[in-house]
Amino acid sequence: MQNFTFYNPTRILFGSGRIADLAREIPAKARVLITYGGGSIVKTGTLAEVKSALSGFTVFEFPGIEPNPSYETLMQAVELARRERIDFLLAVGGGSVIDGTKFIAAAIPFVGEPWDILAKRAKISSAVAFGSVLTLPATGSEMNNGAVITRRASNDKLAFSNALLFPRFSVLDPTKTFTLPPRQVANGVVDAFVHITEQYLTYPSDAKVQDRFAEGLLLTLIEDGPKALQEPENYAVRANLMWTATLALNGLIGVGVPNDWATHMLGHELTVMHGLDHAQTLAVVLPAMLQQRRAEKRDKLLQYAERIWGLRTGDENERIDQAIERTRQFFESLAVPTRLADYGISREAIPVLVEQLQRHGMVALGEHASFGLDDSRQVYELAA
Amino acid sequence: MQNFTFYNPTRILFGSGRIADLAREIPAKARVLITYGGGSIVKTGTLAEVKSALSGFTVFEFPGIEPNPSYETLMQAVELARRERIDFLLAVGGGSVIDGTKFIAAAIPFVGEPWDILAKRAKISSAVAFGSVLTLPATGSEMNNGAVITRRASNDKLAFSNALLFPRFSVLDPTKTFTLPPRQVANGVVDAFVHITEQYLTYPSDAKVQDRFAEGLLLTLIEDGPKALQEPENYAVRANLMWTATLALNGLIGVGVPNDWATHMLGHELTVMHGLDHAQTLAVVLPAMLQQRRAEKRDKLLQYAERIWGLRTGDENERIDQAIERTRQFFESLAVPTRLADYGISREAIPVLVEQLQRHGMVALGEHASFGLDDSRQVYELAA
Repeated sequence: MQNFTFYNPTRILFGSGRIADLAREIPAKARVLITYGGGSIVKTGTLAEVKSALSGFTVFEFPGIEPNPSYETLMQAVELARRERIDFLLAVGGGSVIDGTKFIAAAIPFVGEPWDILAKRAKISSAVAFGSVLTLPATGSEMNNGAVITRRASNDKLAFSNALLFPRFSVLDPTKTFTLPPRQVANGVVDAFVHITEQYLTYPSDAKVQDRFAEGLLLTLIEDGPKALQEPENYAVRANLMWTATLALNGLIGVGVPNDWATHMLGHELTVMHGLDHAQTLAVVLPAMLQQRRAEKRDKLLQYAERIWGLRTGDENERIDQAIERTRQFFESLAVPTRLADYGISREAIPVLVEQLQRHGMVALGEHASFGLDDSRQVYELAA
Repeated sequence: MQNFTFYNPTRILFGSGRIADLAREIPAKARVLITYGGGSIVKTGTLAEVKSALSGFTVFEFPGIEPNPSYETLMQAVELARRERIDFLLAVGGGSVIDGTKFIAAAIPFVGEPWDILAKRAKISSAVAFGSVLTLPATGSEMNNGAVITRRASNDKLAFSNALLFPRFSVLDPTKTFTLPPRQVANGVVDAFVHITEQYLTYPSDAKVQDRFAEGLLLTLIEDGPKALQEPENYAVRANLMWTATLALNGLIGVGVPNDWATHMLGHELTVMHGLDHAQTLAVVLPAMLQQRRAEKRDKLLQYAERIWGLRTGDENERIDQAIERTRQFFESLAVPTRLADYGISREAIPVLVEQLQRHGMVALGEHASFGLDDSRQVYELAA
C-alpha cells in the first residue's frame, strides 16, 4: 500500500425526508444562495421543499447551471453572491450543480481572475461555505473536494480540487431520484462505474481493502443499475445506487493505490468537441482503454474478470477479452452506446481530439504517467 | 437501508514515516500532553521519534494507561492536564490509550464528577483537542468518537461516545506494529473481526454496500491475520491489517444497518470479573452468540457462510453450523481460545456475570432489543 492521507469532513444526511434537517446544518442568520440547474427541481417540488426547510433564512436563488457547468454562467452567480453578501451556498441538483457551486464558492473571495484557479492552478486561501442536496447519484461531488468546469469560449474542460471545497454537508434522499429520466439514471451508473475502475484497474499494490471495496461498489452497480431503470421507485435500489455513487469518489477507494484518470481525460475532449454526455464519453473510452492497456493492467484485469464477472477458468487472454466485453455489454444494457460511431463521430474527428489533449497538457497520463498522445489516438481509434 | 447520518472528520496519516508529519497537525504553541501505556513505546523508540517530531512544542508525558483503561488512572492525567494548562493531547499506543485519552479530553473541562459522563451519560459541551499515533491495530478508536472505560473500584466497564471526541488526526504507521507480541496481534485481528460481525450479522436491510464492505474487511482479516503472525515484518500485511481494523469501526459499515453489540456487552463482564483480554472475551462469546441467535440471524448467517467461507451448497442448517465452526477455528488458529473453560472459568461463574449485566442495564440487547438476561445466560453456557 502506498502512503496516503485521508480526510473527508463532509456530513452525510442520508434517507427519505432528510431535507427537513437542512436548517440545523446552516449557520443561523446565514444569507443563503440556492444554486440549481434547468428547473426540474421546480417541477418536482424539491425546490419548494428546500425553501420550506430554510424558512427563517434570507434566501436567494441562482438557476440555470447547465450540465458541464460553464465558467461563463458561474461568474454570473459569483457577481450575484458578491453583490448580496452571500455567506452560504446550497447546491440543489446533480454533479454539475455541485461542481459549479464549488467554483462559485472559491471564486467569490478570490482576488484576480477566477479562471486562473483552473487554468493556472492559482492558490485559493478561502472559500464560501456550502452544502448540497443531491438529486442525481453519479459524480460523487457531494462528498469530495473536486470539480470540473468548462469554459465554452475556449473549449476547455478542466478539473481542480482544494481542501477548502468539501461540502459542509450533503443531503442524500433516494426518493429525490425517483423522477429522473432513464438517461440520467443510466449515465449516473456508468459515471460511478468508471470512477471506480479509474482507481481499481491499474496494477496491484497490496491494498486488499481498497480492492474489495471497489469490487463491492462495482457489484452493487451491476446488480442494482438495471433494476433502477426497471423499477424507478424501488427505494432500496435507489438508496444503494446513491450511496455507491458517493463512495465511488469520496477518496476512500483511491487512497493508497495507483490512480489512472486517462479515461476521464479522453472523455472530456469528446464532451467539449462533440457535446456527448460525460457518462457517454466514459462508456465509449473505457472499453477501448482497457483493450489498449491490457498488458499494463493485466493482473488487475484478471482479478476484475474473476471477482466481478466470475471468469475463473480458461485462457487468461480470453478472460480479459470477456471481461472487457462484459463491461461494454453492461453499458449497452443501460442504453448507453459504447462506440464513437453510435454518436455520429467518425475517425476523421480523432486528430482534433488528440490536439485538444496536447493543448491541455494530457501527454503523460495513466497510473505510470506513460500514456502518451499516440496511446490516446489508439484508444480513440479502438473506440471508433 | 435505514436513514443515517455519517460524519467522520478524523484525518488519517497512513504509512511508513508519517510520525514526522505530526508537527503540522498540532496547533502552533500548543502545550501537548503525550499519553501512553506500559512503556513499550519507550523501548521501541517510538516515543523518542514522536518527541523528536514535536520539537518546538511544550511537551508533557503521562505514562501508565493500562489495558482496559481505568477511571482511577485517567483522573491522574486529568489533574496533570488541568495543572499544566494542556491544550492538546497526543495518545501514543493502542485502543486503550486512545480510549483513555478521549475520557481525559472530555474530563478536563468537565464541571462536576467526570464519572457521570459514563454512569449518568452527563452532557459534554467541550473537549480538549487530541490526536493519536496508533501502535496496535484493533479497536478502531483512532478513527471514531467512542471509548470504553473501566472503574475498578466498582467493577464497571462502560462505553460512551460524543461528536466532540473524534481524534483530529491519527498516524497509522504499519512499521510500528512489527514489534507487537503475537498475542496482541491476534487479539487485534479478533477484535476487528467481531466489530465487523456486530454490524453485519444481524438481519438483511437492503444495504448492499455496507454488506460488501463488511465482507471485504472480514476476508482481509482471514487472509492476512495469520500472515501477520507468521511474517511480523511483512509491511503489506501489516498495512492491510491496520487499515482494516480502522475501517471496521469508523462508522462506515455500521450506518444504515441494524447493529448488535451484545457480544461486546457480554464480553465486558468477562473482562471485569475474570481479567480476560477484550479480544479473548469476544472469541469466547461470538461463536456461542451466533449459535444462540441462529434463528434471528439466519439470512445473514447464510450470506456469511457463502461469501466469507464459500459454503454455497448443502443443507442450510449445516452451512450455518459450519460457518460458526469456521469462525471458531479461525480464532483458535490465531491462538485465541474460544471456550470459558480454556481460561479456567467454570459454569459456576455464570450467574454472577448475568447479575453484572442486569446491574448495568443490559437487559434488552441485540438488533431487535430482544436479547434478555436468560439469553445471555444461555450464551455463557454455550461458551462454557
